[in-house]
Amino acid sequence: MDRERLLKELSQKNDKKIILVVLDGLGGTAYKDRKTELEYARTPNLDKLAEISEIGLVHPVSPGITPGSGPSHLALFGYDPLKYEIGRGVLENLGLGVELEKGDIAIRGNFCTVKEEKGKIIVVDRRAGRIPTEENIRLCKKLQEKIKKIEDVEITFTPGMEHRFALRLRGKNLFAFVNDTDPQKEGKEPLPPKAFDPRGEKLARILYNLIQKAREILKDEPKANFILLRGISSLPDIPSMKELFKLNPAAIATYPMYKGLAKLVGMKVLDVEGKTTEAEIETLKKHYEEFDFFYLHIKKTDSYGEDGNFDEKVKVIEEFDSLLPEILKLSPDVLAITGDHSTPALLKSHSWHPNPFLLYSPFVRPSGIKEFSEKACVSGNLHLFYAMDAMVLLLANALKLKKFGA
Amino acid sequence: MDRERLLKELSQKNDKKIILVVLDGLGGTAYKDRKTELEYARTPNLDKLAEISEIGLVHPVSPGITPGSGPSHLALFGYDPLKYEIGRGVLENLGLGVELEKGDIAIRGNFCTVKEEKGKIIVVDRRAGRIPTEENIRLCKKLQEKIKKIEDVEITFTPGMEHRFALRLRGKNLFAFVNDTDPQKEGKEPLPPKAFDPRGEKLARILYNLIQKAREILKDEPKANFILLRGISSLPDIPSMKELFKLNPAAIATYPMYKGLAKLVGMKVLDVEGKTTEAEIETLKKHYEEFDFFYLHIKKTDSYGEDGNFDEKVKVIEEFDSLLPEILKLSPDVLAITGDHSTPALLKSHSWHPNPFLLYSPFVRPSGIKEFSEKACVSGNLHLFYAMDAMVLLLANALKLKKFGA
Repeated sequence: MDRERLLKELSQKNDKKIILVVLDGLGGTAYKDRKTELEYARTPNLDKLAEISEIGLVHPVSPGITPGSGPSHLALFGYDPLKYEIGRGVLENLGLGVELEKGDIAIRGNFCTVKEEKGKIIVVDRRAGRIPTEENIRLCKKLQEKIKKIEDVEITFTPGMEHRFALRLRGKNLFAFVNDTDPQKEGKEPLPPKAFDPRGEKLARILYNLIQKAREILKDEPKANFILLRGISSLPDIPSMKELFKLNPAAIATYPMYKGLAKLVGMKVLDVEGKTTEAEIETLKKHYEEFDFFYLHIKKTDSYGEDGNFDEKVKVIEEFDSLLPEILKLSPDVLAITGDHSTPALLKSHSWHPNPFLLYSPFVRPSGIKEFSEKACVSGNLHLFYAMDAMVLLLANALKLKKFGA
Repeated sequence: MDRERLLKELSQKNDKKIILVVLDGLGGTAYKDRKTELEYARTPNLDKLAEISEIGLVHPVSPGITPGSGPSHLALFGYDPLKYEIGRGVLENLGLGVELEKGDIAIRGNFCTVKEEKGKIIVVDRRAGRIPTEENIRLCKKLQEKIKKIEDVEITFTPGMEHRFALRLRGKNLFAFVNDTDPQKEGKEPLPPKAFDPRGEKLARILYNLIQKAREILKDEPKANFILLRGISSLPDIPSMKELFKLNPAAIATYPMYKGLAKLVGMKVLDVEGKTTEAEIETLKKHYEEFDFFYLHIKKTDSYGEDGNFDEKVKVIEEFDSLLPEILKLSPDVLAITGDHSTPALLKSHSWHPNPFLLYSPFVRPSGIKEFSEKACVSGNLHLFYAMDAMVLLLANALKLKKFGA
């Protein structure tokens, strides 16, 4: 019996409401006073809730694996993160707020510097000297004005940071079976876009034309006089949360990538007025009657973790703690609070460390531990588990899963 | 290396004896004084044993999944519960004490009410108004008298509760590739029994005839004037415990379904004089020399859990505790005490919560925790594991598994 078939067969609709709060990059490692950010933070409300909840630690993927935001979120949404791969091009586009539909081709582009040598084009700087973002915006606009459509295919350029941009192609019969054009090394020729499966031939032709046009348009630019394409991909064929879990799910997030990831699994993305956690909780209250599952994403824990800013990460956690009573006032049937992965200030990056996890419902075995932290979760009754099982526990506690077998 | 092949290759026979006690539905959730049934019960003998045993928590299937008795027992017997599915028809027959052999077809039947409308038969009540069980007994007798055999196939009707009965077909070349006839909704025609694989055609024909005959026999009944057939299945092709583990296993149980499940994996079902736990332990003593593995099943923990009767479930646990010294007097080489799934009085149903597990042998690392309860097991040295690994631990502690690799 396949895992998804099992969940699909067992899941059932009811009126109970689930809230999943994801403090991005929540987990940490020993840093200040030998404490993690969460251990250091003053979190009276989380600590009180932990005592009557089940707590434990959750591996985003598996021991030692550091995930990106894509796999770590997919896992928390109940999907096997090794089963569904989200292409770089898809993630780049989602991260910049580009709408993607099934069949669209999503690509990550770089502006680069090339020179001609004996009739050959040679890449001399793969990042075009990391041109300023404003330059990037100007260049994307210039390209977009002149390249709107090739054959029946609509082309959309979206500037990112520095030399990076996102490219979306929308048209008939496009399949992401085309290799990267980035030669990965300077001093080499850009690779031609080549189909590695006959179904990719139309896309390869379109991209070939697109690159020629871009070369012409950019030829007088001092640095960014060419483009390289990577991560040519399309949306994975992933069943929606409605299909698998019979949920009517909503996402509350302020950053494009998380909205995009939520859309990928069929969540309705709700508008948030502002960028603060308070604004997000207001959105939750406003739409609380309309959905039975809410994903609430808090970004700044991760951002400050990536900056190595321990104190500011602590503050974001403390701020969330102070707002927790507002969520509890809604009396959700099931509430989970965790991270998608750890982002220890010590490492200034995502890490493999499992995340603290708190699960509250009327049907839990209370932990009796009045503390929510990495250390406390070691002794928690949920022990150490895998993120893709988190959703199964949430559904079970919401009585949204029937019995397996008789 | 496939899991079953591994176990088959490593298992070896010796004289050591294993007793697996299953208190059905043992696990609970916080209820009285914020305690579970097991936490609330006075269990001095279990507590004393826990201190010198390994303890932990066991997932019947996997996190969040609530199992029926079939999968939960298969797992404890050492089988992957997602690999072997036990059909509803098989379980219904086993539960009513019907003997099943390989090749038999087992079906779950409902008496229902139909009316004729424009030459069509329409189901107006799928459960025939939940007729009393005595009515059911009378009707099954009536059907059995007139339908003994169709072609070479012997037919056996066995009454269940209210409108439910079990049907067994025994004959040549019968394969369970036939759909249910229950239309699942009232106001619809019953579905014809239809083979969804050519091998099912003989069975479909027999069932078609059977339904016609039943219609004729029941036509003057006020309510139960037709039958619907569901869960058409046969015994899964499952290797025996002897084959896999080289055990000579016996089952001590008082309820038909558990005897049936034990038979399914090749256990010898021992006669118990009476229905009490004491009678079961007497049986254990009487046959102790004859077998090397004993499955001892205590049903009432689950029954009272299903009733929401916390106090009576507590009493069943306390009664078992008082009888535990009788089992210990046998000096089993390995003794395990656990549940097949949780049945918290709070939920009045099976649940997904992991079960407390106690494993005693001369080769354990003693827990040092003088308490057997959900809470104590959180800190136990077995941590949280999957039920299908329990048997492997029992075999290991009985020195019945050779080294893997050199």
